[in-house]
Amino acid sequence: MIKRNTGFANLTAGYLFPEVARRRREYAASHPEAKIISLGIGNTTEPVSKHIASAMSDYALGLATPEGYSGYGDEQGNSALRQKIAEVFYSGKVDASEVFISDGAKCDIARIQTLFGNDVKVAVQDPAYPVYVDGSVVVGAAGENIGSGYKGITYLPCTEENSFFPDLSKIEPDTLIYFCSPNNPTGVTATKEQLKKLVDYANAKGCIIIYDSAYSEFIRDSNLPKSIFEIEGAKTCAIEINSFSKPAGFTGVRLGWSVVPNELKFADGSSVNKDWNRVMTTLFNGASNIAQAGGLAALDEQGLKDMKAQVDYYLANGKKIKETLDGANFKAMGVEAYFTGNGPYVWAKFPGKKSWDVFDAILDKCHIVTTPGSGFGPAGESFIRFSSFGHQADVEEACGRLSSFSM
Amino acid sequence: MIKRNTGFANLTAGYLFPEVARRRREYAASHPEAKIISLGIGNTTEPVSKHIASAMSDYALGLATPEGYSGYGDEQGNSALRQKIAEVFYSGKVDASEVFISDGAKCDIARIQTLFGNDVKVAVQDPAYPVYVDGSVVVGAAGENIGSGYKGITYLPCTEENSFFPDLSKIEPDTLIYFCSPNNPTGVTATKEQLKKLVDYANAKGCIIIYDSAYSEFIRDSNLPKSIFEIEGAKTCAIEINSFSKPAGFTGVRLGWSVVPNELKFADGSSVNKDWNRVMTTLFNGASNIAQAGGLAALDEQGLKDMKAQVDYYLANGKKIKETLDGANFKAMGVEAYFTGNGPYVWAKFPGKKSWDVFDAILDKCHIVTTPGSGFGPAGESFIRFSSFGHQADVEEACGRLSSFSM
Repeated sequence: MIKRNTGFANLTAGYLFPEVARRRREYAASHPEAKIISLGIGNTTEPVSKHIASAMSDYALGLATPEGYSGYGDEQGNSALRQKIAEVFYSGKVDASEVFISDGAKCDIARIQTLFGNDVKVAVQDPAYPVYVDGSVVVGAAGENIGSGYKGITYLPCTEENSFFPDLSKIEPDTLIYFCSPNNPTGVTATKEQLKKLVDYANAKGCIIIYDSAYSEFIRDSNLPKSIFEIEGAKTCAIEINSFSKPAGFTGVRLGWSVVPNELKFADGSSVNKDWNRVMTTLFNGASNIAQAGGLAALDEQGLKDMKAQVDYYLANGKKIKETLDGANFKAMGVEAYFTGNGPYVWAKFPGKKSWDVFDAILDKCHIVTTPGSGFGPAGESFIRFSSFGHQADVEEACGRLSSFSM
Repeated sequence: MIKRNTGFANLTAGYLFPEVARRRREYAASHPEAKIISLGIGNTTEPVSKHIASAMSDYALGLATPEGYSGYGDEQGNSALRQKIAEVFYSGKVDASEVFISDGAKCDIARIQTLFGNDVKVAVQDPAYPVYVDGSVVVGAAGENIGSGYKGITYLPCTEENSFFPDLSKIEPDTLIYFCSPNNPTGVTATKEQLKKLVDYANAKGCIIIYDSAYSEFIRDSNLPKSIFEIEGAKTCAIEINSFSKPAGFTGVRLGWSVVPNELKFADGSSVNKDWNRVMTTLFNGASNIAQAGGLAALDEQGLKDMKAQVDYYLANGKKIKETLDGANFKAMGVEAYFTGNGPYVWAKFPGKKSWDVFDAILDKCHIVTTPGSGFGPAGESFIRFSSFGHQADVEEACGRLSSFSM
């Protein structure tokens, strides 16, 4: 019989969010009266703008006409959309040939490991979005789980002590570095100076950075970099992954992109962009053409205005949650809440407590689903991530309940 | 610096279809007067039915309303769609929990290799759809290219001599067998008796079959099996991959599904379905919800009628091409054309000629793009694949030109 991929045997427990969903389901089943509100998974709740939805609707209807029909598109994406992304998000610093359209950031993060195979060294921020680690485990690059994490992965603690920016000197040469900014889960956005340090380190040590900027549209401080390609030297050491999911409400529509610079090389001097092109043409078949029509609409004047309004809405929720967590009842528990106003998450430390215990207590006493920080890595223990994705009325109701929480 | 995945270094030349596209582009550039018709890539050309397109259009428009909006869906797919596929295509032989919705068959074929890692033995029909081999090469399961093919892959010749059904005894125990029916490129559909042999062999030898039935809706002979799960014993040895691309015209919309039976096990007794669930939830994030709305419409009474009409249209094209290739000019060259009426491809042998030479001659003399059989594997040499996907008028014009072809 055929053997199981040892990567799966090495994967620990459930993927974080299904486990959160499971506990929610169980709680709901035994407490049918509870009106549960989710500040857990980063799932958008507000309708897509009329302008963007109409573009997709019109495109779909057009598929029923000879003029509007299209079959397979370029696997790398609609060239007008690649061009528009290069212009709007990278002001010409990136060429359209370096932009590849995907069905979302998570899928590209999974595919990207294909480029490097199963014997690459991996470093992740700790805490981090679980897919970086799980994707590495599945391809066999992470090795065994040794309790505190995987043997083959370097965890870079991002804590209050280092203002959530890791000690780079722990990263070995020739390492694939996953770096997320604005960060999920801490919400912290790296400064230009910090990213310059990271880029210089990667170039000096032969590392490649997978820069996840899926939350870049939440950045409101104009001094903060929205792309790693604002940093000199990034094109020889970084791949950027981004998505329409959060700013356009496309979590279910599925559309993202990655930028793989022409200057980026493997050790043998061959082009990473060329291999990525091969991944996308051989192992992928393009994002839905309807979603791509939506992406184009999202990048015109009206679409950009709509995306900004949608992000503003969620940022206001985040501010409200942060104010609640600064309340006297939380102060009494020693809770410290971090919210930058440049990302969608509020990251709160409950000193001396286990994340899952706090998760369960908040679910039980407030009927609110959160995300336990320990699910994002060892350094996330004692933290809870509060997501600002939710209807304003629900967030206000949740904040009302939280204002009398204690454990 | 980081090393290149050796799988990419092992990949030969370009992926078949980009190479075909390149030759077409070059020819068009040097012959701007040529009105080129494509009977090459299997790309749908006919509009999506109004019924199905309207369902997607309505869904997209609904995303702009609070009632119609949805964010992340289940990564495994909309449960109503999973249920409907189980009923419509498998008449209850398959449970909804065994059906996983994807963004298309090609993407699932690529992802499926993740289940088995890089040391699994692989067997493919020869000729075969190139992604089975290329996907295996990229994960490192295929080994080096030794000229006639990859060292780690068992090629199973499917030729006139064996009526295009392979000699199974060449397959070693514990092998992953890619099997496509109706076949791309030969067009041949396996009978129930043949599939029973395949299933029995796989069960006896501990093999797993990846059954690609993306063209099953082309089957018009009611004695032929549309699914491997019509065969007793298949649930302990097979995974089926299918797609809405061809019957619904969804090549650009992106929607497919895979069936991974609960009974299917790895050598250690663990469940393949469970690991696949993990692949889909961790490395994928669901097909576009708009496409899934289209899939649901395609499976109601009107949608099924529309899909049948669309397939009938292409089958009529295939019949016309087959008649043309039976003409006196082709007979004079010794050409033998195979067309079953149960698949979209006409597979024609040009004895004593190289496939790429025939490809070039047909492009040059008739301004018609075809697909060279050798691109599908060593046993495809001397063959040309003619695709029936095209506007009827174009196919008729192409057949007119072909009727005076010689080389």
